[in-house]
Amino acid sequence: MAAEIATTELINELQNICGKANVFFDEESLNHYGHDETEKLLYPPNVVVKPTSAQEISSILKYCNEHLIPVTPRGAGTGLSGGAIPQNGGVVISTEKLNKILEIDERNLQVITEPGVITEVLQNTVKDKGLFYPPDPASRGSCFIGGNIAENSGGPKAVKYGVVKDYVLNLEVVLPTGEIIWTGANVLKNSTGYNLTQLMVGSEGTLGIVTKIVLKLIPLPKYDLLMLAPFASLEKASEAVSAIFRAGFTPSALELVEIDALKIVSQMVDTYVVPVNENIAAHLLIEVDGNDVNVLMNEMEAIAELLQQYDVGEVLFADDAQQKAELWKLRRAVAEAVKPAGYTIEEDTVVPRAELPALIKGVKDLGKQYNFHAVCYGHAGDGNLHIRIKKEGIPNSYGNEEMNTILRALFKLVKSLGGTISGEHGIGLIQKDFMDIVFDEANLNIMRAIKKAFDPNNILNAGKIFDL
Amino acid sequence: MAAEIATTELINELQNICGKANVFFDEESLNHYGHDETEKLLYPPNVVVKPTSAQEISSILKYCNEHLIPVTPRGAGTGLSGGAIPQNGGVVISTEKLNKILEIDERNLQVITEPGVITEVLQNTVKDKGLFYPPDPASRGSCFIGGNIAENSGGPKAVKYGVVKDYVLNLEVVLPTGEIIWTGANVLKNSTGYNLTQLMVGSEGTLGIVTKIVLKLIPLPKYDLLMLAPFASLEKASEAVSAIFRAGFTPSALELVEIDALKIVSQMVDTYVVPVNENIAAHLLIEVDGNDVNVLMNEMEAIAELLQQYDVGEVLFADDAQQKAELWKLRRAVAEAVKPAGYTIEEDTVVPRAELPALIKGVKDLGKQYNFHAVCYGHAGDGNLHIRIKKEGIPNSYGNEEMNTILRALFKLVKSLGGTISGEHGIGLIQKDFMDIVFDEANLNIMRAIKKAFDPNNILNAGKIFDL
Repeated sequence: MAAEIATTELINELQNICGKANVFFDEESLNHYGHDETEKLLYPPNVVVKPTSAQEISSILKYCNEHLIPVTPRGAGTGLSGGAIPQNGGVVISTEKLNKILEIDERNLQVITEPGVITEVLQNTVKDKGLFYPPDPASRGSCFIGGNIAENSGGPKAVKYGVVKDYVLNLEVVLPTGEIIWTGANVLKNSTGYNLTQLMVGSEGTLGIVTKIVLKLIPLPKYDLLMLAPFASLEKASEAVSAIFRAGFTPSALELVEIDALKIVSQMVDTYVVPVNENIAAHLLIEVDGNDVNVLMNEMEAIAELLQQYDVGEVLFADDAQQKAELWKLRRAVAEAVKPAGYTIEEDTVVPRAELPALIKGVKDLGKQYNFHAVCYGHAGDGNLHIRIKKEGIPNSYGNEEMNTILRALFKLVKSLGGTISGEHGIGLIQKDFMDIVFDEANLNIMRAIKKAFDPNNILNAGKIFDL
Repeated sequence: MAAEIATTELINELQNICGKANVFFDEESLNHYGHDETEKLLYPPNVVVKPTSAQEISSILKYCNEHLIPVTPRGAGTGLSGGAIPQNGGVVISTEKLNKILEIDERNLQVITEPGVITEVLQNTVKDKGLFYPPDPASRGSCFIGGNIAENSGGPKAVKYGVVKDYVLNLEVVLPTGEIIWTGANVLKNSTGYNLTQLMVGSEGTLGIVTKIVLKLIPLPKYDLLMLAPFASLEKASEAVSAIFRAGFTPSALELVEIDALKIVSQMVDTYVVPVNENIAAHLLIEVDGNDVNVLMNEMEAIAELLQQYDVGEVLFADDAQQKAELWKLRRAVAEAVKPAGYTIEEDTVVPRAELPALIKGVKDLGKQYNFHAVCYGHAGDGNLHIRIKKEGIPNSYGNEEMNTILRALFKLVKSLGGTISGEHGIGLIQKDFMDIVFDEANLNIMRAIKKAFDPNNILNAGKIFDL
């Protein structure tokens, strides 16, 4: 498709709409916007445009819709499923110049923002007002809030506070045909028509381009406490996870990191806090938060006591803000650290929490059967396990037959445990071939019909999630 | 449309599918299933069927889809927007025989249920296991969980715990064409394809009939405390509402009841606890819950202290379980009590919480302008205000030109305050004519296209939410 695009004409039109300074077609730009953080994939587009308003995006989409030119929306390019990769060429619309926080509504505990704001910047800005926006993907220091909407991102806090979808009240969206709509209203409850807001969240930029976002905020909890619990067995660690919830606790984070991942990351990050020795197979990182520090200390003690039943080692209670920051830095650096060590293929499986031990055992068994090495880590409290796979000579799963066989076996296991393919990364390009494992054809056909209802010419992020 | 239906043939077919004992066409049945709790509307269907499985519903829908026969799904018939009213005649499918709780998964804190289970029965059943399903509409003692899904119901606990959509993980749905799908997976996080689960919640039975429901549960809080706070002015009471949240509190309920409503209900319900005197304009009912009773007592005191700034009267702290139950009984009985007193038209407006005072003032002004009397009550913490309207000689808003003029003015006010038409009741039949106030045509067209994608022949609950 890309080869047939009359690029010169397209560039002229985009320059007319957005100004020459916002249109890019040099090789460096095309290469930069031709990849995201997904494996080692590169598909340069024909042109990159950086609009500064919803109106400009509307004009671009109207033109591309009329001329059947593929359009790929892009946030910060930190995605892990290829959602921002322009594999059909055409136009990349980067939202990086829509980067303003428009209003913090302290009366109603809401924020209105453009999509190109870095998630952590948004979090810190509302934190200064005593407010809290919890969803915090590992990439929060570089990802955009708009991309978080597209993928329905999660992060460690999701276990207590929910994911992105739980905070989005209303969205301004440019439809693929160029019309601009608001999906809902800036209210906490809404039973007025179909929930287009929720349909848009997690639709991976295939149904429209989000240009304004209204988020619910909550009061910032005053205190949090953090502990690191080592286990001699990965299975025991994962069994402890569901026991914590069954006992009535709701931690504000409950993360698992396998020792192989921690070994790699602790070589990269200067640290002294985490014990790495041959008797440890995995750690749980457990946080509680709230407004009464004594209540939290009692909770931490009770959880530590409960962990004794699962052969926990010596529990480390983080002493101060610095130690907490260091532990979190380690946790957040895992994916980035293991990638250059050859673990280029990241999966985002999710199962009912109590099935984690079975999933972890199954992954290890598959590794033996198919001769790959995997490290497991992630948001254990949600049953959301990231599995980073290293297989000699195979850097990408996308388009690789051998890896596809392995992933098919993995996802069938996940399905058999009541789980699904993606908890927070999205399907994008690299997982769409596995959708048949978790959805019937009737279900996929309904999704395709929804896509056609929004995007009759299939111009917007076509070929993501499923093929039409 | 109804007049053209070959009823005898239809009845035979339904008897073949579901058995003679589950098909009803006597006058009493048709009248019973021809209304719900919405105003005083009555539209008897041609036939009522009570299937006992998703497979039977699939067969019914296949037949009706082929023969273009209108189908109206129905839960317990407690709806307030006419969602279950068969205004086109045809078939009513009652879910009352799909009434089993299928599994309580204590390992994963989930419940799998059929749609015809009474919400309170479901709540009490999981409560026996120490688990909590929070959404609790006023009608919870008689409404079905399936109807709650259809309308995305809320209730008092929504202010802390969210509404139905926040608990639905996965749904088995029979599509209007008869295909049976699962919308998602039984997991806490899911970024796998479009969020059909969330699209289905609140779609008011227009996109499919839900036959199995997987709900997330949470640990049951150990304690709750309740206070009743009287105010001399309705505006002051509603100003206090947003002040409570701005001060960092998150009550588990924050209800407002105007004195006119309370006068009526306290005559009907045997009570001594609520002061009704000429110095009181409204009450706030404020609940906090959690696992540490001392923390809760401190919170209650701090909230009561804060209320002093809003000219609160003498605050009543509920002494024991009986007094709490009595206060809640009063609150829950309001809608039922004021209806026979002539307040037959109930609105379900929702605005950003801090706009409540402006909404209440605006409602009273409209009452003077258009000569109607209104009582206000509802979930003030969510900005969700129920407005019961009494206008001599006009029992229904639906089809009444004078009431339509009034409601149009009311909803324009709501829209101007950043709000929308329905917070938890749905649009159904009686509010669809006002959708243009809150949605652009482009937005409504997308909703219509989604409806067509699911229901190409427009047989399922046609004419609800919008006309095609």
